[in-house]
Amino acid sequence: MRKGTPNIKFLFEPRSVAIIGASQHQNKIGYKIVENIRFSKYPGKIYPVNPKGGEILGLPVYRSLDEIRGHIDMAVLAIPAKIAYQAVKDCARCGVKFLVLITSGFSEVGNTEGERKIVAYAHEHQMRILGPNIFGIYSSMAPLNATFGMKEIMPGSVAIITQSGALGLAMIGKTAVENIGLSAIVSVGNKSDINEADLLGYLASHKNTKVILMYIEGVKDGDKLVDVLKETTPKKPVVVIKSGRSKVGAMAAASHTGSLAGADEIFSDIMTQCGVLRAESIQEAFAWCKFLASAPTPKGENTVIITNGGGLGVLAADACEKYDVQLYNDIENMKKTFSGVVPEFGSLKNPVDITGQATMTDYEQALNISLKNRDIHSIICLGCETAVFAGKEISMMVKKIFSAGKSKKPLVFSFVGGVQTEEAIDHLKTSGIPIFSDVYEAVSCFGTMYVNYHNTKNSPAAEIEEREIDIRAVESIIKKARDEKRQSLLSWEARGIIEAIGIHGPESHLARNLDEAIAYAEKLDYPVVMKVVSRDILHKSDVGGVALDLLNRDEVIDAYGAIMHSCREHVPEAIIEGVEISQQVEPGLETIIGARRDRSFGPIVMFGLGGIYVEVMKDVSFRALPLNREEAGAMIKEIKSYPLLLGVRGEKRKDIDSVIDTIMNLSALIQKCKSISDIEINPLVVYEQGDGAQAVDARILISSAER
Amino acid sequence: MRKGTPNIKFLFEPRSVAIIGASQHQNKIGYKIVENIRFSKYPGKIYPVNPKGGEILGLPVYRSLDEIRGHIDMAVLAIPAKIAYQAVKDCARCGVKFLVLITSGFSEVGNTEGERKIVAYAHEHQMRILGPNIFGIYSSMAPLNATFGMKEIMPGSVAIITQSGALGLAMIGKTAVENIGLSAIVSVGNKSDINEADLLGYLASHKNTKVILMYIEGVKDGDKLVDVLKETTPKKPVVVIKSGRSKVGAMAAASHTGSLAGADEIFSDIMTQCGVLRAESIQEAFAWCKFLASAPTPKGENTVIITNGGGLGVLAADACEKYDVQLYNDIENMKKTFSGVVPEFGSLKNPVDITGQATMTDYEQALNISLKNRDIHSIICLGCETAVFAGKEISMMVKKIFSAGKSKKPLVFSFVGGVQTEEAIDHLKTSGIPIFSDVYEAVSCFGTMYVNYHNTKNSPAAEIEEREIDIRAVESIIKKARDEKRQSLLSWEARGIIEAIGIHGPESHLARNLDEAIAYAEKLDYPVVMKVVSRDILHKSDVGGVALDLLNRDEVIDAYGAIMHSCREHVPEAIIEGVEISQQVEPGLETIIGARRDRSFGPIVMFGLGGIYVEVMKDVSFRALPLNREEAGAMIKEIKSYPLLLGVRGEKRKDIDSVIDTIMNLSALIQKCKSISDIEINPLVVYEQGDGAQAVDARILISSAER
Repeated sequence: MRKGTPNIKFLFEPRSVAIIGASQHQNKIGYKIVENIRFSKYPGKIYPVNPKGGEILGLPVYRSLDEIRGHIDMAVLAIPAKIAYQAVKDCARCGVKFLVLITSGFSEVGNTEGERKIVAYAHEHQMRILGPNIFGIYSSMAPLNATFGMKEIMPGSVAIITQSGALGLAMIGKTAVENIGLSAIVSVGNKSDINEADLLGYLASHKNTKVILMYIEGVKDGDKLVDVLKETTPKKPVVVIKSGRSKVGAMAAASHTGSLAGADEIFSDIMTQCGVLRAESIQEAFAWCKFLASAPTPKGENTVIITNGGGLGVLAADACEKYDVQLYNDIENMKKTFSGVVPEFGSLKNPVDITGQATMTDYEQALNISLKNRDIHSIICLGCETAVFAGKEISMMVKKIFSAGKSKKPLVFSFVGGVQTEEAIDHLKTSGIPIFSDVYEAVSCFGTMYVNYHNTKNSPAAEIEEREIDIRAVESIIKKARDEKRQSLLSWEARGIIEAIGIHGPESHLARNLDEAIAYAEKLDYPVVMKVVSRDILHKSDVGGVALDLLNRDEVIDAYGAIMHSCREHVPEAIIEGVEISQQVEPGLETIIGARRDRSFGPIVMFGLGGIYVEVMKDVSFRALPLNREEAGAMIKEIKSYPLLLGVRGEKRKDIDSVIDTIMNLSALIQKCKSISDIEINPLVVYEQGDGAQAVDARILISSAER
Repeated sequence: MRKGTPNIKFLFEPRSVAIIGASQHQNKIGYKIVENIRFSKYPGKIYPVNPKGGEILGLPVYRSLDEIRGHIDMAVLAIPAKIAYQAVKDCARCGVKFLVLITSGFSEVGNTEGERKIVAYAHEHQMRILGPNIFGIYSSMAPLNATFGMKEIMPGSVAIITQSGALGLAMIGKTAVENIGLSAIVSVGNKSDINEADLLGYLASHKNTKVILMYIEGVKDGDKLVDVLKETTPKKPVVVIKSGRSKVGAMAAASHTGSLAGADEIFSDIMTQCGVLRAESIQEAFAWCKFLASAPTPKGENTVIITNGGGLGVLAADACEKYDVQLYNDIENMKKTFSGVVPEFGSLKNPVDITGQATMTDYEQALNISLKNRDIHSIICLGCETAVFAGKEISMMVKKIFSAGKSKKPLVFSFVGGVQTEEAIDHLKTSGIPIFSDVYEAVSCFGTMYVNYHNTKNSPAAEIEEREIDIRAVESIIKKARDEKRQSLLSWEARGIIEAIGIHGPESHLARNLDEAIAYAEKLDYPVVMKVVSRDILHKSDVGGVALDLLNRDEVIDAYGAIMHSCREHVPEAIIEGVEISQQVEPGLETIIGARRDRSFGPIVMFGLGGIYVEVMKDVSFRALPLNREEAGAMIKEIKSYPLLLGVRGEKRKDIDSVIDTIMNLSALIQKCKSISDIEINPLVVYEQGDGAQAVDARILISSAER
């Protein structure tokens, strides 16, 4: 945070609010905002501002900010873009802390300069900006509804941050339908200054907020976002809807907001790294938020399904696998626990089938037993409508069980049936009971609950170890390339850099002539590899610039001649500096490790298996930096071809520690050495556990911006 | 169909029904069924049967079937299992055609013998059985509600076949909630005789039925099912919910029904082959059925999204990618079409953003233009609640547009907003308009519509060509193995079989001693490969029984000695018949093709890339047999590593035709030669287009059942 930057608390709990562009016309945004602030029973000072003066809803209107005597924490600007800059200046003069810039017509329509100017001015004067191009902010903490959306917002424990204004306003409406109480809803719009990360910082430690929902189209300052998310998710669940997953979607997102949507795979992997719950649709996100805001934390992972229909039980078991919910399977304990309530033709195994003859009393018994059993940590209760399981009695039974058990164990219900059943479901929903028509929806809530369970259990995160890097050695190699106006390093330069940071490859030497080549080859163990070295030759194999598997002095001599001949024939103008002589590496499992600066997330690292796995199967995983060894390990495990590292077909386990080391080293390099934009080790040949790995080739690109 | 088997029509449209076990007690199933039949205004004869006689709901009760004078098309049996066999005998005597066996207590609780006996008896007497362990059948064609479920079932155009009774009854209830009319619902229970395939045969050609929904837990007679599905889906959409996808789910399914759930991947691939729409949950399936029952067939694939909020548009575009819905992208035409209705700051590209200022009139205009434009084939209309897009006017606009456009083009709506919007959605749903709170749900309906579009467009399916196979040659090799009581063929026997059916491998000879080995090696081109031949040695490599890359006579002599020495040392008791000398094949892309008899689907075929791709990545595809070349091509394209066959990194396209040929040959073999239970070619090395493929190794298992 910049020096003198106001505390973000005053955005959520301002002591006074000025509305610049307040209006007497009821169909104007400037009226609607004043009306909503009044309606929300905001306890602080309200200063409507309009050159025309007068009165709005009984409040005196100030002709200018200067007329206001008290301090102003927040100014809401509902004025045209062309006069916004002047208003911002006025705000600075009057000591405003936060500008809520409703106004549109900035970067979202290409006016980036107008936006940049305002932000720069605000920063110079210790002001922060929410927006522009937003509907405002609601905070139950003040309480304050400084939006031009719905008047009535039910206070509660879910906070929403939305990049889309239209969708945000519609979501406020939907919270009313779904009976979801809000602690805050913030429209971030173009995110010219304040973005998700700033807001999360406040919401993470705010005790009224139990769940945070974010609708994101594009990420700005992703590295900051990652830091804050990592701090937030061990404290409370964060649900994200990220639109623009598809190519068309990403293009559409880019066309209608100020920021480009990042590649979805990278986003998705980084959210996993941060412990964020990614929802596909608004519906799904709302269901999760509502559930997470009220469910108790489970004491363990043993989930039991109680059902009166086998089919429904099987569907739920399928859903449990999809959402990674663990079904309790201690058969002996299950038998002991449920033998009294399951008839002979039912099932004592999980899902527990109390059969279609089960009455309300049977349900109650089975649920009470589950609630009492300490080895059962959470319960999914299912029901098909039957002659003995129908109507209002369902509601009564569920309410009774839920109020008895809700503070003890997470419970979720899903019933299928006719009009009566649906009515019971609707009624129970209104009472705040997690009940769903759809089994998958019910189980998905448990899935998110268990992700959250692991987030909170695993915290605090392991320390990220500092790696010493010989930056001076690295920079001196890069300086040479920069001096020669190159944007990529030669392969032996790249290899020099990775050696300098402790990533080892085969012993290798630059030979400037045949004699040197022979001398180096003789020094190494045969077989050796020879590659042409020339900044004019990028694809060495294509011009006959590579010779593998050279077994003796004679083959080295022959290969040298052949390479020179072929390269001169193919690229006559190339200046050839010599050849690189390397030890040929033993075969092993080929992997690829890369690191680069992502436009959304800053430095990121990638891991995958070599060759086809990366290119065709796209079997790779990404992580944002910094990361610790544990996260690097998780990243490796995430790829589908991970079993190859564990060893298949009787092979031994590979040296995964070496892979982690390499990921850590490369990560440290890209973080500390701003001159490097991209680095890729391909392949890193990994041997059996204890035998390490060899970086055979490396490619390094230099940042285009001079330092 | 067996000779004398009654026409399945009489199951759906019986002219008379006897209810055996009819009861006067209102809480008995035997009463409920009579009541439901009466209530459904069944026009045929109703014969309640009970030894006690008397009267039920004004109908005289017959003391036995023999008292009934008229013919009886259908008998519904609601009596205990222990007296069912006698009742079936009575039915046979009275010429009953269909037995609807409500009774439980058969194979689902392990009483397979009781079930088998009844089925055998029924078949001997030209009767067919629905069930046992079912709730009955409803058919709007009679109309007849011969179930013990809900009295009131709304007639319509969706037919449901369900394996789960409890879920089936609950689904009937849910159809009422969702306003879905049914043409039939059939409970198949244990599927002792009549199964999905029998019922589909009738429903496929029944004009009142527009969509068929099946809930399946396990497949019996899968090959028959596949045949019927392939005939059905070009005529009308078939939606399947298959539970037991997960391991726990499959186990639970097996524990509560009479049939074991098949491996989910195989099921899924075969459903794709059949053009079936697989839904995950009941909710999803119902949404699809409802939509498909009423939407017109689109004239093409150009879908346009109209939205008043960019965010919602992006979410819909993401959903379109997920569900394979094509967004129309002729930018010039889009501009021309929509420039009049999209303000400057909106978007003329797809999704078309008419902005948050769009009024009802703007929506109407945009939708009417889309309806008129012949290049636009289907429309997704989205809306966020705004000040100018809210309340009852939404309903009016949607109704107007929908009634104007519904016969022309498929339309789907999805709105997000507050209570008013949700009320409008509920109201419009009741009017039969496809409208959803969730964008993904809306788009998924379009996805299924387009799968159906392709199903109907691609029909009729290409002829399946008959392949000549030298069965006698194959059988003579197998006979030898059988005589020796072996269950698998030796590798050179297996190779002999695949040669016999036209799948070629490297030239190969069985050498019984060193001299023969040398002679054969000299006849072939070097390098050659040598492998030990012994029925006692299964894993040749493990005991040093394989030598590759033999370059000359001396190496052949050395290898022979080494193999004999090593094998005798490792497996002293092994009888060694000699060695196999083969031409070493040129390297190429390694693939695996397998065929086997699946317990659910009968003969199936599998394709994947060799080695790790199959073992670790599980990147394989399955098809049921018979299949045509087109289906084999689709099967190859389905695997993720397909680009390797097209050629990556500048490699040329591989000889995909050879792969298809091999699939076709292997398929013909497993179909025609019942003695073979499993066959796998691994690897089939595929070369560049025109250069064919080589089957390097084959493994064949013999069916345990003697022919």
